[in-house]
Amino acid sequence: MSDIKVGLIGYGNIGAGVVKLLQQNADVIRSKVGAGIALKRIADLDITSDRGVTVDPACLTTDVNAIFDDPEISVVIELMGGYEPAKTFVLKAIEKGKHIVTANKALLALHGDEIFAAAARKGVEVQFEASVGGGIPVLTSIKGNLAANRIDSVFGIMNGTCNYILTRMTQEGADFADMLAAAQKLGYAEPNPTFDIEGVDTAHKLAILVSLCFGTRIDFNSIYTEGISRISALDVKFASEFGYRIKLLAIGKLNNGQVEARVHPTMIPLQNPLAEVNGVFNAIRLHGDFVGPVMFYGRGAGQNPTASAIVGDLIGLSRSMMAGAGRRMAPLGFMDDQVATLPLKPMSEIVSKYMLRFSALDQPGVLSAISGALGRHGISIESMVQTSHQADDAAPVPIVIMTHEAREGAVQAALAEIDRFDVISQKTGFIRIEDNLE
Amino acid sequence: MSDIKVGLIGYGNIGAGVVKLLQQNADVIRSKVGAGIALKRIADLDITSDRGVTVDPACLTTDVNAIFDDPEISVVIELMGGYEPAKTFVLKAIEKGKHIVTANKALLALHGDEIFAAAARKGVEVQFEASVGGGIPVLTSIKGNLAANRIDSVFGIMNGTCNYILTRMTQEGADFADMLAAAQKLGYAEPNPTFDIEGVDTAHKLAILVSLCFGTRIDFNSIYTEGISRISALDVKFASEFGYRIKLLAIGKLNNGQVEARVHPTMIPLQNPLAEVNGVFNAIRLHGDFVGPVMFYGRGAGQNPTASAIVGDLIGLSRSMMAGAGRRMAPLGFMDDQVATLPLKPMSEIVSKYMLRFSALDQPGVLSAISGALGRHGISIESMVQTSHQADDAAPVPIVIMTHEAREGAVQAALAEIDRFDVISQKTGFIRIEDNLE
Repeated sequence: MSDIKVGLIGYGNIGAGVVKLLQQNADVIRSKVGAGIALKRIADLDITSDRGVTVDPACLTTDVNAIFDDPEISVVIELMGGYEPAKTFVLKAIEKGKHIVTANKALLALHGDEIFAAAARKGVEVQFEASVGGGIPVLTSIKGNLAANRIDSVFGIMNGTCNYILTRMTQEGADFADMLAAAQKLGYAEPNPTFDIEGVDTAHKLAILVSLCFGTRIDFNSIYTEGISRISALDVKFASEFGYRIKLLAIGKLNNGQVEARVHPTMIPLQNPLAEVNGVFNAIRLHGDFVGPVMFYGRGAGQNPTASAIVGDLIGLSRSMMAGAGRRMAPLGFMDDQVATLPLKPMSEIVSKYMLRFSALDQPGVLSAISGALGRHGISIESMVQTSHQADDAAPVPIVIMTHEAREGAVQAALAEIDRFDVISQKTGFIRIEDNLE
Repeated sequence: MSDIKVGLIGYGNIGAGVVKLLQQNADVIRSKVGAGIALKRIADLDITSDRGVTVDPACLTTDVNAIFDDPEISVVIELMGGYEPAKTFVLKAIEKGKHIVTANKALLALHGDEIFAAAARKGVEVQFEASVGGGIPVLTSIKGNLAANRIDSVFGIMNGTCNYILTRMTQEGADFADMLAAAQKLGYAEPNPTFDIEGVDTAHKLAILVSLCFGTRIDFNSIYTEGISRISALDVKFASEFGYRIKLLAIGKLNNGQVEARVHPTMIPLQNPLAEVNGVFNAIRLHGDFVGPVMFYGRGAGQNPTASAIVGDLIGLSRSMMAGAGRRMAPLGFMDDQVATLPLKPMSEIVSKYMLRFSALDQPGVLSAISGALGRHGISIESMVQTSHQADDAAPVPIVIMTHEAREGAVQAALAEIDRFDVISQKTGFIRIEDNLE
């Protein structure tokens, strides 16, 4: 059987990982596909830098058209990242009738609709397992063996940088800034870490997960996204005292045809397996009406795990081609005409429990003023911790309140009112709590 | 598009779950496949008992040939369980050119080779996601998106009965017999629990996992299988003190072309996520050369999760048929002619750490006699706990020794020698330790 011919656009760290995997495990791949998978052309503007792997120089090109115009190439791997020219190249490859494998979460989160529509018209597949959770085969599972379920929730710890920082803050009682610096020193955080620590990367992945789980388009810019930079050592300490870990959690829910999609620091009960996902590991947990809760855990990033997912997608496509199949599956697992545009619940209407951390002057009546304001907004208190008086009576003391379930809008209105009190010495901190992670 | 027609053999609890899922989520299935999946015939000797679901009486039959002889039926679901007549029926269905979906782990563990060979000859698929880990999509993932990896280890907690009993023994400090009785009362253990508690069910699942992960045939009867009935409250307590949980663990490893496959109570370090898999939940962890460690977690049994896996397999087959594919994948993910028969490492040659629990009379020289015997067999001691003297000098005291890595054969020989000492008052207990769960 002749080889399946593949083109690669974007020869960076991940691209080199794909080359390495295709070389090192060529025998494994052949034993599963019944043919080889051959990387016929690799296009990049830089084709001279050493990537730590050796390829036939004749396969390298700075002209991406060498891939588009090669009729032997049936699959194009896009690993440029970013929106452009990645989008133009992907659309061009689709136009030429080639299947797409990509790890580009930003591209799919913002321009998935357009790309998927083009793929539908041309009858090609778009596979993107590497875009969420690195090597963890979660997207393939949602689209594949879990497809019989109505999925009603999905939760993910999907950013290694944030999880590494929060894990060390928890283990060492350290502050955010110090642990960010440590993560940068170790290469776990970028010199400019905004995309990771402010939750944008996680929101890209959530957009993809929500689309797959609920069969809906989603407007990426409407996803509420809050990062971990305002989490303090004190937050982590109080969360532990109440029996929780703080994680940057992606939350997707489907209730009565309305979608929730939000990314923010979240308190997770210690007994839940997600609370024990530490360091650079990722985990995704979902709930289906028949399967119940399912969790996937593994390395969410890195050259090798990402290459595993990309070549896994290639193997899937190759098997279908070898079996004579045309397009076996639409990009989201749902038939193209079955993808809906479900409404997104406004953030002010979501319901959650909260940990509220007030900095108040140690004066009589403070607690009654706070609880009165909460009560007026319909927020009831589950428990409270007020730490002992300070040596200096004028120093603010932390008051920590755990609420029962309340509407986000009510909580924000109550906090805005309370933060205007004279006795409140700094902006009140709040962290949402997710008790029911099924 | 006309429906995919399916036949079901064996209309018990799981069969009723499949009927329920196909009915309740018919719209979900259609939105993923682009056609319906119709259960055209259901064969069982008993077609009158109430299963809690309603089917067209015309579709029920006591004559299994009604399924084999129906050319419209392209997939047969086998849910009879056991070896015969399940095997005969599966082979007959294959002979008639029908794809197979089964949850029958015992059948596959013992007669997989014969069934897979028949399927290869007839060019049909055999899918069996429900046979391991209930609804957890682990087999599909190993065969599918993880296919590019050389997998070198797989570990599983795959029997809900055992895990429920061990979890309660750990949480309550209770004895095995009491917790088995409790599990039976709650329906988590069968009236005759031998298959579960002696590890046979777990070994069936391990045989399947080892075949998929390493691409090898395996002689089921050569899998070392030891259940949990000899685990005492004292074992659980000492394991906790050393920082471990005891789990019934299925272990598969591949080293230099030699396979390890064994099922036994195993001490797992508390920091490992597998240690926190509690109650009736299942988890499977594997390690691939590129993906690194991956863990899957979910409900390992039950009507609904099992139906999720079975209908997931049906959806996969239906998609291939809709796309015009013939046989897309061989049963093990490896091409049929690529499945090897790798040698199984004899149990006496495996290397492990051990917790040894001696019951010794409290006399001078006991410790030196024990450590001397261990030393003569090349077993070195990592740490030791000897509990304080008893009020009654004649009562035996427990001495617990943690060994460094040692050969199983050496450990068994040493224990046989030590158990003949006059000062040893009962057979020495031992539990293998798995520290490196990557």
